[in-house]
Amino acid sequence: MEDLKRALLEQFGLVFADASLLETAFTHTSFANEHRLLKISHNERLEFLGDAVLQLIISEYLYKKYPKRPEGDLSKLRSMIVREESLAGFTRDCQFDRYVKLGRGEEKSGGRSRDTILGDLFEAFLGALLLDKGVETVKDFLYQVMIPKVEAGNFERVTDYKTKLQELLQVNGDVEILYQVISESGPAHAKNFEVAVRINGREAGQGQGRSKKLAEQEAAKNAFEKESHSCF
Amino acid sequence: MEDLKRALLEQFGLVFADASLLETAFTHTSFANEHRLLKISHNERLEFLGDAVLQLIISEYLYKKYPKRPEGDLSKLRSMIVREESLAGFTRDCQFDRYVKLGRGEEKSGGRSRDTILGDLFEAFLGALLLDKGVETVKDFLYQVMIPKVEAGNFERVTDYKTKLQELLQVNGDVEILYQVISESGPAHAKNFEVAVRINGREAGQGQGRSKKLAEQEAAKNAFEKESHSCF
Repeated sequence: MEDLKRALLEQFGLVFADASLLETAFTHTSFANEHRLLKISHNERLEFLGDAVLQLIISEYLYKKYPKRPEGDLSKLRSMIVREESLAGFTRDCQFDRYVKLGRGEEKSGGRSRDTILGDLFEAFLGALLLDKGVETVKDFLYQVMIPKVEAGNFERVTDYKTKLQELLQVNGDVEILYQVISESGPAHAKNFEVAVRINGREAGQGQGRSKKLAEQEAAKNAFEKESHSCF
Repeated sequence: MEDLKRALLEQFGLVFADASLLETAFTHTSFANEHRLLKISHNERLEFLGDAVLQLIISEYLYKKYPKRPEGDLSKLRSMIVREESLAGFTRDCQFDRYVKLGRGEEKSGGRSRDTILGDLFEAFLGALLLDKGVETVKDFLYQVMIPKVEAGNFERVTDYKTKLQELLQVNGDVEILYQVISESGPAHAKNFEVAVRINGREAGQGQGRSKKLAEQEAAKNAFEKESHSCF
């Protein structure tokens, strides 16, 4: 806990007035359940709150960033940005995964690198920050941690290339596009996936990434670039 | 529009710095579509934003109000409070339905009293208020307009009596509980429903309300009170 406090101060200049909020945010249900007699609070209620403040800040950001886009597009973009996998990524970026308290079983089975746990942790942290410091501080934090990656197009790119590839190929009628994991390596917290994309059975591109989805995107991108050249 | 501005000032002490936000919030898509050449903005994007700020404020309220309830209960309560039907009710309470601009077809077919349109309008107004004045003003507004009704238990009661009745009766094995509309009267904006509840074919209670659901709740409540007495 002291390490976490130090890290928050050094990385983000944050000092919690109520440290018990921080404690709760970093306590997974599995830990609270194992120590039931101590009546420790876990982070599910804070996650509920954090999810809501995250949605609001991302919604307002998207509303202002894309003044011409219809509501449906904004919703789609938002759901890409706030999905579990990407939130887990932000937890890792902030190195919050080091500090979460897990039950023994959860720890053994690799919970510390599981996207569900890490995504929820990110939201719970935002909930604690909201209660301790208010919505403007949560906004500042997200503009420091998340928005630069959104600006860099990290989220628009996801699904884009798979969709783009499909749109490109379907101009010539129905095609079968298959993504296949060809290798999976590395320890649980630093996995590497290699994926190949096959168009009507023919391998059209490969990609790698720390999740299957990211590897698929890269494969789709490579295939897209090859295929769109071959059309000219 | 001038009437709306006056009403906002008189009822809520609100003056919009950017009146075009207000204009947009009160413009339904059907109106914008009818005047396509004028390129009028409609309220769907503001609704997207208003939904998010509403969720946050209600989430924070519930989190603080019910310090012992698990996340699942808070989610359920929140969804009851922010559902379309109840938001439409707040629009009517604020008399915002008077000011929404609808296309001619929509107006003719009773759009001005339709819950979807009025619920969306309430959210769009909150979105406009957020952009014009910030989250604290939206909070103040909701604490004036919505929270007193939530505190009065208007939302917890919904679904409660139907569930309570079912739980009471199922102690004695399976029973068939049916709700039946026995009359529907009044103009579109002020409907009145009468509903009867039948337990294994026998009428056990009646209720009325401005929606089918509210009337069912009242019928369930009446039946519950009779049935729970008859158990002693």
